[in-house]
Amino acid sequence: MNLKQLSEMLGLSQTTISRALNGFPEVSAQTRSRVLKAVRETGYRPNRAAQRLATGRAGSLGLVMPIAAGVDSDVHFGEFLAGLGEEAIKHDFHFVINPSAPEDEAGMVRRLAASGNVDALYIAYVRRDDPRIPLLHTLNIPFMVHGRAVDQSVHDYPFLDIDNTGAFHDATRLLIQLGHRRIGLINGPAHFAFAIRREKGMKKALVENGLPFDETLVHHGQMTDSFGHQVMERLLDGPNPPTAILCSSTVLALGAVRALDRRGLKLGRDMSLIAHDDELPMLKPENFSVPLTTTRSSLRAAGARIAERMISRVLQNGDPAEQELWRTELIVRDSTGPAPRGH
Amino acid sequence: MNLKQLSEMLGLSQTTISRALNGFPEVSAQTRSRVLKAVRETGYRPNRAAQRLATGRAGSLGLVMPIAAGVDSDVHFGEFLAGLGEEAIKHDFHFVINPSAPEDEAGMVRRLAASGNVDALYIAYVRRDDPRIPLLHTLNIPFMVHGRAVDQSVHDYPFLDIDNTGAFHDATRLLIQLGHRRIGLINGPAHFAFAIRREKGMKKALVENGLPFDETLVHHGQMTDSFGHQVMERLLDGPNPPTAILCSSTVLALGAVRALDRRGLKLGRDMSLIAHDDELPMLKPENFSVPLTTTRSSLRAAGARIAERMISRVLQNGDPAEQELWRTELIVRDSTGPAPRGH
Repeated sequence: MNLKQLSEMLGLSQTTISRALNGFPEVSAQTRSRVLKAVRETGYRPNRAAQRLATGRAGSLGLVMPIAAGVDSDVHFGEFLAGLGEEAIKHDFHFVINPSAPEDEAGMVRRLAASGNVDALYIAYVRRDDPRIPLLHTLNIPFMVHGRAVDQSVHDYPFLDIDNTGAFHDATRLLIQLGHRRIGLINGPAHFAFAIRREKGMKKALVENGLPFDETLVHHGQMTDSFGHQVMERLLDGPNPPTAILCSSTVLALGAVRALDRRGLKLGRDMSLIAHDDELPMLKPENFSVPLTTTRSSLRAAGARIAERMISRVLQNGDPAEQELWRTELIVRDSTGPAPRGH
Repeated sequence: MNLKQLSEMLGLSQTTISRALNGFPEVSAQTRSRVLKAVRETGYRPNRAAQRLATGRAGSLGLVMPIAAGVDSDVHFGEFLAGLGEEAIKHDFHFVINPSAPEDEAGMVRRLAASGNVDALYIAYVRRDDPRIPLLHTLNIPFMVHGRAVDQSVHDYPFLDIDNTGAFHDATRLLIQLGHRRIGLINGPAHFAFAIRREKGMKKALVENGLPFDETLVHHGQMTDSFGHQVMERLLDGPNPPTAILCSSTVLALGAVRALDRRGLKLGRDMSLIAHDDELPMLKPENFSVPLTTTRSSLRAAGARIAERMISRVLQNGDPAEQELWRTELIVRDSTGPAPRGH
């Protein structure tokens, strides 16, 4: 049963049927109930294209996914998408994901917005000064930014971010209170706003406590187990290793802890460590051999909230530039302890 | 510049312009070159909806993503999607992902196929006897199955699967050659075809070597670090622990290895372990404190190949029921060794 057949059966135009199904007020209650009865009896499912013609909506949220041969997939993406999906399903929204060469991301955002395939757009992995944000402002389509830029001429855009500066400030302050003076940072790629803010938070706590900021203890790179391991090895081989480490992900911590294990160094005694925890289900900080102290914020909850706000804008034209900043929680477990003596 | 404006500028109908852009033979070479010149000069990007009307194609691949509150996201999904994306981008295809309640997956597949939003459909996490496969046969849309059913009335469907039986047969045989007699298995959920075949491969090798199959050493569950840890603890606490373990994922191995570490048991000496490795970039088997012996097959390569086959069917109506079975590689590292004496 397609729309044409249903239209012939009921003696109603296809437009009237679509409008009846999509709750338009021009359709009388009597006609609507006739249409709904026929839909139930025939098992007809409205074609999305027809629905789109009637409502002007695609029922979909758009994402651009940068990808290239040799570029690693992102372990955080699935978790975020699960959150988006959990919310989207409540409103019968789907996703349109455009893969894109990394250097063509802005162009792909522009084309996705122009495609008519999506009602709203989402961007993430925001950079210091991100050209996609002013671009989105010109595209005449609702959007949400996960994160926010650091230096940007445009300020009035809708975002959800976590307080990265606050998270790493609080974590660093705890380490200082425990007597640590040399603190390392294994961070994400240096051009991302979240990484810039985490370094800033760490610096702030050091300065507040009259401690020097040692650039040689700060390393930026891909948030993989391998990179965490490599940096920890390098720090331990240095002339004056830190006594504590901040990691921008539990994935980085996995590699860092392995480097400690290999040398027989005990976490929480010989080296303290605090990791940022996105609550990835496959890598729980409480399951590490020494449970990890973390700054915690659910990536999945962020996904659900972002979907909720985009859908609400599409359906109701809600507040266009609401800005949300989520505080993280500092959860103390066994990977942090007093600085070893002699340091 | 939209299609209407371009049409007015050139004095050509919108349909003629769309057809020129999409390579239809009815359009003369002269007209086509006029259109292409105008497109280049004006920076016009064809609207997808217009393109779809002209070509009858959406330029998109459909996936249904089962999701529910409280159901963990799948760490393998992002990696598979990266492979799909890498290939899709070459042909300017995008993805439509419909989130779905787990119990409504078949219904969602049906609705996605009927939506007109996708040119082809993909399904994964195939079950023993999977109702989605006969359903897809009735839907009149190209599809690909990642994996294959075990008991299914329908056989002539296009799939790409890895040889799960062969992989775990080979792994078990290696352990037997090393003198192991009691071998455990930490597997994925029991209703999935891949898990059924991996257990079958293990059984086959045991039977071929006259060894008993002990059901108490086989455990099925979510492929998380937590589950791997929990099962390994239980096996070690049992009256007659195995001397070797097969894990269906490096994620399970992560938890299993942690349980060994806690008890001071050395991998490759006190316990041998072989894990299946999907080549997740964040969890490399060679980076474990004792590098893991694995059965290896790239999930990302599978994604790329599945996208390639779907797109080729959409564009050229290629072979509808090609069936591919990829052999896995058995890579020996340090986590396997001779069975401890006295066993």
